[in-house]
Amino acid sequence: MKTLAVLAALLLTSCTSPKDPLPSWNNTPTKQGILAFVKNAVAQVPQADRIAVFDNDGTLWVEQPLYTQLLFAASEMKTRASQHPEWRANPNFVIIIDGPPDAILSLAPADQFAAGFAVHAGRTVEEYSTAASRWLATNQHPRFHKPYTQLAYQPMLELIAHLRENGFQVYSVTGAEIGFVRVANEQAFGIPRHHVIATLLKSKFEAARLQALPDVLLIDDGDGKPISIQNVIGRRPILAIGNSDGDLPMLQYAANGPGPRYTALVHHDDAEREFAYDRASPVGHLDKALDAATDSGWPVLSMKNDWRQIFPKTGK
Amino acid sequence: MKTLAVLAALLLTSCTSPKDPLPSWNNTPTKQGILAFVKNAVAQVPQADRIAVFDNDGTLWVEQPLYTQLLFAASEMKTRASQHPEWRANPNFVIIIDGPPDAILSLAPADQFAAGFAVHAGRTVEEYSTAASRWLATNQHPRFHKPYTQLAYQPMLELIAHLRENGFQVYSVTGAEIGFVRVANEQAFGIPRHHVIATLLKSKFEAARLQALPDVLLIDDGDGKPISIQNVIGRRPILAIGNSDGDLPMLQYAANGPGPRYTALVHHDDAEREFAYDRASPVGHLDKALDAATDSGWPVLSMKNDWRQIFPKTGK
Repeated sequence: MKTLAVLAALLLTSCTSPKDPLPSWNNTPTKQGILAFVKNAVAQVPQADRIAVFDNDGTLWVEQPLYTQLLFAASEMKTRASQHPEWRANPNFVIIIDGPPDAILSLAPADQFAAGFAVHAGRTVEEYSTAASRWLATNQHPRFHKPYTQLAYQPMLELIAHLRENGFQVYSVTGAEIGFVRVANEQAFGIPRHHVIATLLKSKFEAARLQALPDVLLIDDGDGKPISIQNVIGRRPILAIGNSDGDLPMLQYAANGPGPRYTALVHHDDAEREFAYDRASPVGHLDKALDAATDSGWPVLSMKNDWRQIFPKTGK
Repeated sequence: MKTLAVLAALLLTSCTSPKDPLPSWNNTPTKQGILAFVKNAVAQVPQADRIAVFDNDGTLWVEQPLYTQLLFAASEMKTRASQHPEWRANPNFVIIIDGPPDAILSLAPADQFAAGFAVHAGRTVEEYSTAASRWLATNQHPRFHKPYTQLAYQPMLELIAHLRENGFQVYSVTGAEIGFVRVANEQAFGIPRHHVIATLLKSKFEAARLQALPDVLLIDDGDGKPISIQNVIGRRPILAIGNSDGDLPMLQYAANGPGPRYTALVHHDDAEREFAYDRASPVGHLDKALDAATDSGWPVLSMKNDWRQIFPKTGK
């Protein structure tokens, strides 16, 4: 009889409380707010308008000590320097080529990105993707000693899955250069290439092949984020999550429409399990965006309090 | 008994010959070639790589007497000229504003497009879409006396549906400006906004709204087609159909990959049911592309011989 009662209770539980879609989130108002938003969106928003956009670095995966794309760029520049004597004409590139592996950290952001664009230029899209895959497979994060693609945030992977299950199209929107992040997004977050919106270089088409040029077409950061979203999707997102001032225009764009809207910031306040940094971080400045969140009542997701688990238990 | 036999025969037919997915195509080698390609693609190509790209004007719908977008632009310029005194500083715009409705036809192509960009600039994305919808709902083709959105080619609508049923992602890739063609694509071909790749203007983001500027970011024609395809999709298409020299790089890009490939040109050779024009047409030049098709053995779809029906029987 006792066994039967237990079985009945179990059965009842499984019928009345469906599987938690966000098991890595603590049961805080943040989690309740997200789940309520998704429920409202399904009830009120036509499926074609269920567009969710996520920043990458610091929102979907670790961005310290530096954006992964720039660590890749520095590594590529060092290993390929002998084939590119022209790189030595740029004093910043010389610092990267001849310096220690983290020398790129000493450069100004624009010079860091210039290195990223230089290592892409002159190679076909396919060659560059192959190099990105190889680097991701053979390099590890200096602190966590895991491949970067295993440092996606588990709570965000669960949120992406939950959104998709509810008819959302999920896009990643990042200031990094698209050739590298398409590879990383596919491996780390399961976001397919045509759902990656990122900084575009100019390209040339020659002998039926595409090659990047070292000139920028459109920087997907700041105002460039809503602009790029419109260029690629053509609809205003109803959910946007970021973690820096460069994400603020994207959040404002998503917030400023009719019907259910969800805009939030990830706050890195967990030095023990990840990193703790705030308004004045060397990457991911979060100054105007935090003020805007306070003014507008946008949730600020605390990694420390809202997330039970940061990284996937095993490799993704 | 006779009735039973007929019923049995009917039943047998419906079991052994499945519904023709392309009823508006005559049973020519062209149709057989397309159906064989789709079958091969399903067997050999992973679903993520089943990408099909179609030019718009002259490939999916009528492009004579002029690209629909430019007819819209001329109409907009005439009706909104009093609000834009600055337009009169451009002598070409004056020709459009003060001339007959088809005055835009007398301008050089670059000047025609400049008018298209001017009528978009300064309005929000939403305002411009509304204007495009209103124009499409209230204007008719001068020869066929039907709304332009009912002048999609029925055989192409069937091909798009057949490709989708077989796991293809179908994109439209056009030199026209994206704000207008997104509206037209949704209405005429059922292609959603995020599957429209087109010419992009620069934009500005202000007060949480996007406005186009009258400056071009990337012309989606010629080499711009494969470049834009890579920017948006990140995969090389395996099917590409166009009808002019501006489509040739896109066709070369699609043709130059491993596995099953299908690249073809639409040939306007049916003056009676649509239009007949060729290498030297004022729109849709088809000179290098026809030579390339001959050299490479790409099919040239004859509207006259391959298509049983040109337009949908009733409005789509």
